[in-house]
Amino acid sequence: MLKNDPLEQWDRDIFLHPSTHLAEFARGNVPQRIVTGGKGSHITDRNGNRLLDGFAGLYCVNVGYGRQEIAEAIADQARELSYYHAYVGHGTEASVTLAKMVLDRAPDHMSKVYFGLGGSDANETNIKLIWYYNNIRGLPEKKKIISRWRGYHGSGLMTGSLTGLHLFHKKFDLPMAQVLHTEAPYYYGRPKGEMTEEEFSAWCASELEAMIEREGPETIAAFWAEPVLGTGGIVPPPKGYWEKIQAVLEKYDILLVADEVVTGFGRLGSMMGSDHYGLKPDLITIAKGLTSAYAPLSGSIVSDKVWKVLEQGADELGPLGHGWTYSAHPIGAAAGVANLKLIDELGLIENAATVGRYLNDRMRETLGDHPNVGEIRGEGMLCAVELTADRSTRAAPDAGDKVTQRAVGHLLENGIIARAMPQAEIIGFAPPFCLTQDEADEIVEKTARAVNEVFGSGTSPRPATGPGADDVTR
Amino acid sequence: MLKNDPLEQWDRDIFLHPSTHLAEFARGNVPQRIVTGGKGSHITDRNGNRLLDGFAGLYCVNVGYGRQEIAEAIADQARELSYYHAYVGHGTEASVTLAKMVLDRAPDHMSKVYFGLGGSDANETNIKLIWYYNNIRGLPEKKKIISRWRGYHGSGLMTGSLTGLHLFHKKFDLPMAQVLHTEAPYYYGRPKGEMTEEEFSAWCASELEAMIEREGPETIAAFWAEPVLGTGGIVPPPKGYWEKIQAVLEKYDILLVADEVVTGFGRLGSMMGSDHYGLKPDLITIAKGLTSAYAPLSGSIVSDKVWKVLEQGADELGPLGHGWTYSAHPIGAAAGVANLKLIDELGLIENAATVGRYLNDRMRETLGDHPNVGEIRGEGMLCAVELTADRSTRAAPDAGDKVTQRAVGHLLENGIIARAMPQAEIIGFAPPFCLTQDEADEIVEKTARAVNEVFGSGTSPRPATGPGADDVTR
Repeated sequence: MLKNDPLEQWDRDIFLHPSTHLAEFARGNVPQRIVTGGKGSHITDRNGNRLLDGFAGLYCVNVGYGRQEIAEAIADQARELSYYHAYVGHGTEASVTLAKMVLDRAPDHMSKVYFGLGGSDANETNIKLIWYYNNIRGLPEKKKIISRWRGYHGSGLMTGSLTGLHLFHKKFDLPMAQVLHTEAPYYYGRPKGEMTEEEFSAWCASELEAMIEREGPETIAAFWAEPVLGTGGIVPPPKGYWEKIQAVLEKYDILLVADEVVTGFGRLGSMMGSDHYGLKPDLITIAKGLTSAYAPLSGSIVSDKVWKVLEQGADELGPLGHGWTYSAHPIGAAAGVANLKLIDELGLIENAATVGRYLNDRMRETLGDHPNVGEIRGEGMLCAVELTADRSTRAAPDAGDKVTQRAVGHLLENGIIARAMPQAEIIGFAPPFCLTQDEADEIVEKTARAVNEVFGSGTSPRPATGPGADDVTR
Repeated sequence: MLKNDPLEQWDRDIFLHPSTHLAEFARGNVPQRIVTGGKGSHITDRNGNRLLDGFAGLYCVNVGYGRQEIAEAIADQARELSYYHAYVGHGTEASVTLAKMVLDRAPDHMSKVYFGLGGSDANETNIKLIWYYNNIRGLPEKKKIISRWRGYHGSGLMTGSLTGLHLFHKKFDLPMAQVLHTEAPYYYGRPKGEMTEEEFSAWCASELEAMIEREGPETIAAFWAEPVLGTGGIVPPPKGYWEKIQAVLEKYDILLVADEVVTGFGRLGSMMGSDHYGLKPDLITIAKGLTSAYAPLSGSIVSDKVWKVLEQGADELGPLGHGWTYSAHPIGAAAGVANLKLIDELGLIENAATVGRYLNDRMRETLGDHPNVGEIRGEGMLCAVELTADRSTRAAPDAGDKVTQRAVGHLLENGIIARAMPQAEIIGFAPPFCLTQDEADEIVEKTARAVNEVFGSGTSPRPATGPGADDVTR
């Protein structure tokens, strides 16, 4: 590309960016960054900046940037066969090979794989499969889906409805009918202060059960959840949560969909979040980690229980009326095969476990006693630093102070990409699995500086929204 | 890939194919084809078969197979930077360059480009933009969308609802609320025999207007349509159709969304279907032709009229809560840039116009008088042969005879891929733009043989469903 072209101006004038203040971007009042390359945990931009990407893109570049093994697999596939569709029994060597590799890595009771493009459309596929499933079973009323406040499952119309964050609902008329939200498994933001984690988990399960009873179990088809809450705040489940929730689902014949877009293929330091926490999902949604984002590809992993009904449906109704032109795209499939091989060969999941634990430990040692840090939590290569005005009450800092945004801005000025998680005051990290201990040290040290910079010498308690307020948990 | 691997068996056992009879495929009772390569208009499979792809994949491999210029652009991008996201003002050189190239090719009144992955998600984005648009305008009731029977706009929950084909609704509880279907612009299948094309167009417009009046114009947000019906039967608009329809939309302040997933970037022998037919859409959906399917990428082209309201919305509400992780994926963007360049350099749109016209002319000369051919129609590099039991009444052949499926099967045995279009008896062709006259001759000659083979020596009129029956137009 030419460097003396008007690319920056075209970007301002023409390009409609996701999750961006469109007007301010077009007017040139908010930053712009054109990314040109990357290697390992770092990216570089058009102005020569080199940044440590503490969020791996959008927690997706799991193997890190610049992996030539994946680039060459993509190149080979592009030269040989860039595209053929997967409709009506067609396939490619790459997509069938990847299906086998995915199933080998999935929980034992799963039996089929469908490939899409991104996490949103994979969740969309799973909703369709579930409605079809209950129609074939002769349960046409059993269609509602319960997801959780703070869950993230996409930003389509139905998938954005599953998402339990206000930003994705506001002025889009979401959530749509058929979607209900239950309590977030967010112990830090619990409405009642005097609960143990176990008690909080039991309360979440009882709230779920009350909702099911209120709506009528015969109307509830599925429960949708990430094994660890992602965009909703990087929140591992409280003790006993999954055991109690799954008992409720089983009692009422409600399917469990595990959205493993973030957790699948190593993010927690183990292959799948479902196995990590003992989930027995009926469907699993996968995307980001499947290809480390080197090319778009997502998928639905289908359990044998669901498959049996799909099979019956085909015998009754013929072909399934569902598919994307780019389902199982060969470029994505080739990237997926190379990505999963590379993860194995380099032991990247073990590294995610080891260095992820180191990152979390060091963050706690360094910032755990800071008067404005309410909680540091994580699992595998995920780490969240939740800020507070007052540790004893867990009161949120005044929203107008924008402490998280300022801290993240400070980190960026110092060469670290972190993410201000929405709808709370949380600095999020989800680095590539190849993060080194030195890089983890750098993240921790600069985060501590950023937090100290934002809060000055210490605490600044405020009478603002405390835990228990509805908009913290929800 | 090894040739002595169990790939075929894995495919049967594990891989969930779109639009496939899942049970029969798993049992090995319906065909399987693993595609391994392609060049120009031909693909090759794992068993050494070489086939002339008369449908360009799913009318998407517009430049033909094996284009090394695009493969190398993909390879270069993969080596340099396979991925970075486009959120919050981030971008890549490839995606911004492509936005500029798309806008240069779009109708003059368009001003912004958003990139997604496939046609379904681009239509999903457009629905969200429209609901947001009317909320910002203070018209919260103006949300219903009218699409057409026989339209194809995707197979998601809302996009499958826009689609007006039963296969995509059956047992999925679609269409969802907020979506209405009006008459298909399908003159051949018109309910009243004695209308001219112009009269039929006027009738379609009056039916649309009656629906709007019935529902209340203040509740109707948008009209969704392909410039030429694609999967619904490859049907160019009847004379006067777009002029009359657009007058109705303008009268009631209803947005026009042109779904140019099939027609965009040359399929009609001109750059965009909107300009081809004098449409003034408020939003345009693009996908397939944007990259010729070499990598997944779709887009929404936004008019200045819609943009002005989005800008106002941003100033009122802040960032737009919409985006896919893989929005504007660099691999797709690099493929798009190389694809659009190649189309220009090789004059492929002119070839689509010239050879497409030749294909249609030759098909008419050869089969136009066949007693079982009701109509041959097309535009650019699209051609449909509609079969009938009786030309004088346009009666459909008996469904049990599966004449179209048998004809398409006969073509396949003779090395030609054609498509049996759903919900009618139509053999569809949408070859790559690089189709040669010799290849067009081969398609025509083998189609004639297939039609003669299926119908024996000539006519076989039957008392089956004739035109005017609801399930033909709808």
